Amino acid sequence: MSASVLFMSMSLDGFIADPADRLGGSDGNRLHHWLLTDDGEGFRSDEPAAGLLAEYTASGAIVAGRRTVEIVDHWGGDHHGMPIFVPSHRPPGPSVADMPLVTYVSDGIASAMAQAKAAAGDRDVLVHGGYTARRALEAGVLDELGILQIPVLLGRGRRLFDELPAEIELDIVRVVDTPEATHLRYRVRR
Amino acid sequence: MSASVLFMSMSLDGFIADPADRLGGSDGNRLHHWLLTDDGEGFRSDEPAAGLLAEYTASGAIVAGRRTVEIVDHWGGDHHGMPIFVPSHRPPGPSVADMPLVTYVSDGIASAMAQAKAAAGDRDVLVHGGYTARRALEAGVLDELGILQIPVLLGRGRRLFDELPAEIELDIVRVVDTPEATHLRYRVRR
Repeated sequence: MSASVLFMSMSLDGFIADPADRLGGSDGNRLHHWLLTDDGEGFRSDEPAAGLLAEYTASGAIVAGRRTVEIVDHWGGDHHGMPIFVPSHRPPGPSVADMPLVTYVSDGIASAMAQAKAAAGDRDVLVHGGYTARRALEAGVLDELGILQIPVLLGRGRRLFDELPAEIELDIVRVVDTPEATHLRYRVRR
Repeated sequence: MSASVLFMSMSLDGFIADPADRLGGSDGNRLHHWLLTDDGEGFRSDEPAAGLLAEYTASGAIVAGRRTVEIVDHWGGDHHGMPIFVPSHRPPGPSVADMPLVTYVSDGIASAMAQAKAAAGDRDVLVHGGYTARRALEAGVLDELGILQIPVLLGRGRRLFDELPAEIELDIVRVVDTPEATHLRYRVRR
């Protein structure tokens, strides 16, 4: 069955971006070193990075937070060909008019997730963004968490997790130990 | 060579205690379930909990934060027989007068760590407490981090990691995957 899966790189101290919305380090990409070639220009083709990227691009739709998509201007409207759903109460900016795969959803995270699941069919829905992840957890519409935990303390920035209204139990689905990142996969217990 | 090793249970969202200084969950012990017998009264004797506990009690000294030790009144003055060093600018409370293994250190974390390392000889120094861990990281006197990452989102409470003045790179030393906790061990890169 199709699952909604958060996919984020996070420092050990819980940050997903530095205060300038960069990914840390001198090149601004510290949290994505596990995924990038040494020159930072392309994606790695060796395992386990390549396998994870393949898993990721085999998803059927994305639900991503407005802050996240606006930082990259909606990936230019094409993120591995997947339809992109953005929960937001405000209308989209002008660039979105030329992006047929991007849909702004104004009636909440549960609606955005339902539309994304319908678009994804039997494939998974990728979820990006800290705020969006927390709202999806609160609304009970996040099924799994895929955390790429990076062996660095960024020391400051934007956190993936912040306050939630209740404790949420998880089951550990998979742990992959690599020198550059610990790949943690959890299922939300209902 | 002797190392100073932080040893803490932490929820996936980075908390080491709930707002009431309990360890989360209905029994107030959620973050220590990996370590305790089902009735919560004793320590588990099966692996890997037993092995980690043995590693822990083979340490030669403890450096622990004042908040941490006061919550448990300095473990009654005897924590597996190890000398206990508490960095604090204020003098200790009256109970410490009857605790010969407890030493309050008023001239900072580096001094507390040096005294603990001297007492530990060739054994490791255990470090407990969020504030103390951050001050030790800042002062460059924390060698390793042992994080028992628990598959739960507590949603609120006291964080292990907060702001640090600079990014700190870590090397992953060991990852042990169990259903109840992911045992992560890191070395601080110098």
